[in-house]
Amino acid sequence: MAKFQSFQQMMDKQLTVPSQLLTNYVSLGIQEQELVVLLQLHRFRWEGNAFPTPEQLAGNVTMSSQECSQILRRLIQKHFLTIEQEKNERQIINETYSLEPLWEKLFEEKTVRQDTNYDE
Amino acid sequence: MAKFQSFQQMMDKQLTVPSQLLTNYVSLGIQEQELVVLLQLHRFRWEGNAFPTPEQLAGNVTMSSQECSQILRRLIQKHFLTIEQEKNERQIINETYSLEPLWEKLFEEKTVRQDTNYDE
Amino acid sequence: MAKFQSFQQMMDKQLTVPSQLLTNYVSLGIQEQELVVLLQLHRFRWEGNAFPTPEQLAGNVTMSSQECSQILRRLIQKHFLTIEQEKNERQIINETYSLEPLWEKLFEEKTVRQDTNYDE
Amino acid sequence: MAKFQSFQQMMDKQLTVPSQLLTNYVSLGIQEQELVVLLQLHRFRWEGNAFPTPEQLAGNVTMSSQECSQILRRLIQKHFLTIEQEKNERQIINETYSLEPLWEKLFEEKTVRQDTNYDE
Repeated sequence: MAKFQSFQQMMDKQLTVPSQLLTNYVSLGIQEQELVVLLQLHRFRWEGNAFPTPEQLAGNVTMSSQECSQILRRLIQKHFLTIEQEKNERQIINETYSLEPLWEKLFEEKTVRQDTNYDE
Repeated sequence: MAKFQSFQQMMDKQLTVPSQLLTNYVSLGIQEQELVVLLQLHRFRWEGNAFPTPEQLAGNVTMSSQECSQILRRLIQKHFLTIEQEKNERQIINETYSLEPLWEKLFEEKTVRQDTNYDE
Repeated sequence: MAKFQSFQQMMDKQLTVPSQLLTNYVSLGIQEQELVVLLQLHRFRWEGNAFPTPEQLAGNVTMSSQECSQILRRLIQKHFLTIEQEKNERQIINETYSLEPLWEKLFEEKTVRQDTNYDE
Repeated sequence: MAKFQSFQQMMDKQLTVPSQLLTNYVSLGIQEQELVVLLQLHRFRWEGNAFPTPEQLAGNVTMSSQECSQILRRLIQKHFLTIEQEKNERQIINETYSLEPLWEKLFEEKTVRQDTNYDE
């Protein structure tokens, strides 16, 4: 019989995702592979790694590191992702991915109105 | 300038996802399109719709309802998803998707690959 | 031996709470009993009941419904809570508690006290 | 006008809490002050500090460090909390608080049935 993780381990692993990402990514022009890379970036950041390499991403998806690189570039070009430079406490500059442009698009007022008539 | 949703609306929309789904789906033999359908089923359930139709799914992904049907069938065949029958308070049988088999696979002890050397 | 809920039931019950509520309530002048009422209002709303009665609140805390009423009044006076009137689809006016003023206080820039040296 | 945190900062701060903690703590014999200490332990752990001192706890609640110490002792005596010893990668023993006994009580089958008659 399968032995399961402790509840503590389960609780330690719960990640928060805005449901609007799942309901609105298509209307924002995001494809499934790009969505999964965005989710992985969100998860890596939550685990304390705000600048995962394409190789680290590729270790968690079915795509190669080259494909992950391309998707990252495309997400930056399409303004869902930026690279930020942050000075840490020892004055060393760290690069991090910020999903801020994605969150802004998702949390804009118009993205909530789901029941309106899009009769174009 | 963009007008944003209220914080209340943002807080109302936060969904919890086990991070193990993102770190372990590849090793479970799940592809990105299947992963996204699983996430959508999880979200629909959380919104109170535990048995979304292929058409409802297709309204939130880049795939057609036929492709969504195929993916649902495949997820059932691969034992990540089951269809449950529940009697509601008025004794009417409702069908619901249950992600229980997926959670079981994710929360099995072996899926946590962190502290591997148990040789003491 | 104890029998546990299904993982599906566990996953269905996960609530998202801004950690700033826990780190900043004291500096906002909120006490533990008030904090718990705020958390309960957040939970009720998330379960679909955005206007729980003092009796419903009292059913989940160690305080009486009179005490819950007093705390609700105090939270409104201290501008953490408002009562909103919303028209539903059948044009009937519903009253709901909104935690928007609380979220605004929590998400104001100054509440993040991490990188303190803004030496402008 | 108030300036708000970035959405990224907000998203980075979302904590997952089992709603059963809020619906069932009273029936488990937990009081509001104890509940808040449990929530703070859960938050500290999530932030990477699995063994906060009474002083660190007191810095986030209206209680003194002495009162926090007493509550910690009481939570251990009442079997909601344990102190675990973990060997880290450098073979140094770390003490951590584990909320496992609390989660077990919350996730036991019987704790879900809210509307049943407990008159047997």
